[in-house]
Amino acid sequence: MSSTKTAKIHDVVFSCRGTAVGKMRNDLTVKMVKPWPETHVMATDEGKYLGGEGTAPPPLALFVASLVGCIMTQIRSSAKRWTFTLKDLTVEAIVKWEAHQSENDSYEAMPKGFRLDIDIDSDAPFEDVEKLLEVARKSCFIEQTLGCTNTIQHRLRNDAGEWVIK
Amino acid sequence: MSSTKTAKIHDVVFSCRGTAVGKMRNDLTVKMVKPWPETHVMATDEGKYLGGEGTAPPPLALFVASLVGCIMTQIRSSAKRWTFTLKDLTVEAIVKWEAHQSENDSYEAMPKGFRLDIDIDSDAPFEDVEKLLEVARKSCFIEQTLGCTNTIQHRLRNDAGEWVIK
Repeated sequence: MSSTKTAKIHDVVFSCRGTAVGKMRNDLTVKMVKPWPETHVMATDEGKYLGGEGTAPPPLALFVASLVGCIMTQIRSSAKRWTFTLKDLTVEAIVKWEAHQSENDSYEAMPKGFRLDIDIDSDAPFEDVEKLLEVARKSCFIEQTLGCTNTIQHRLRNDAGEWVIK
Repeated sequence: MSSTKTAKIHDVVFSCRGTAVGKMRNDLTVKMVKPWPETHVMATDEGKYLGGEGTAPPPLALFVASLVGCIMTQIRSSAKRWTFTLKDLTVEAIVKWEAHQSENDSYEAMPKGFRLDIDIDSDAPFEDVEKLLEVARKSCFIEQTLGCTNTIQHRLRNDAGEWVIK
């Protein structure tokens, strides 16, 4: 990959508007802005142990699904581009976090491990399957995002209605 | 937060099994393993431009929803613990990536920016709202995961059925 020149840069942009409803449910309108418009109406909730009503999956379930779904999509897309015959594909994931609860009852979350077990059923030589995974990992938006340190900019609306950068 | 001692560590563990169906759809069974068992049946798909059938949101829509849903959940949970009166909460997000396409038609994905605009409606002083956001950010599993460099371990099943660490 590193030996090839970049021919084109494609922007991929999403927006999301979340509103708080119910006890812990968040209604989320997710829009793909680029490369073409799409809208997806989604929601998160929590189970009763966290004060929710279980009307939708918790945010972490969506996160884990996005990680597995993205690498699977990239494996399938890369296979098509190579005319690589993919007979079947199954991925099993384990994702671990820890929540360090302090004496004041607040806590800090931290990731503790990600593992993906990938089973690609194909007649191709194993070396080609390994190469397919390598290419798919580089094009997986979620894996590439998790593999670097990201800064999330926060703006908080103050009493005068102005956005304050945090 | 850093001045308080850690009283307890809670494990949070998710598993996921993804199977490839349809043209680009991935059926995903996401299980919360710890702290208590929950199962969520989910799916991803792609639109027709990427060879899919649009039967479910794309993986990146789930990812963006998880980011917004997680910080909203943490703001609401933290507000409850403090008996902080939250009258309303709205979050707007913009998430940007670039896909650098090479001459050989493969591409590399990279994150280009995350912004969350947070509107907390409360009678509390703005300083308390700022403090609430600060605490919520530390307890947001997704924000804390994105804020560090994560290694994803991959295992690929070879022709003999053995798992090979990649």
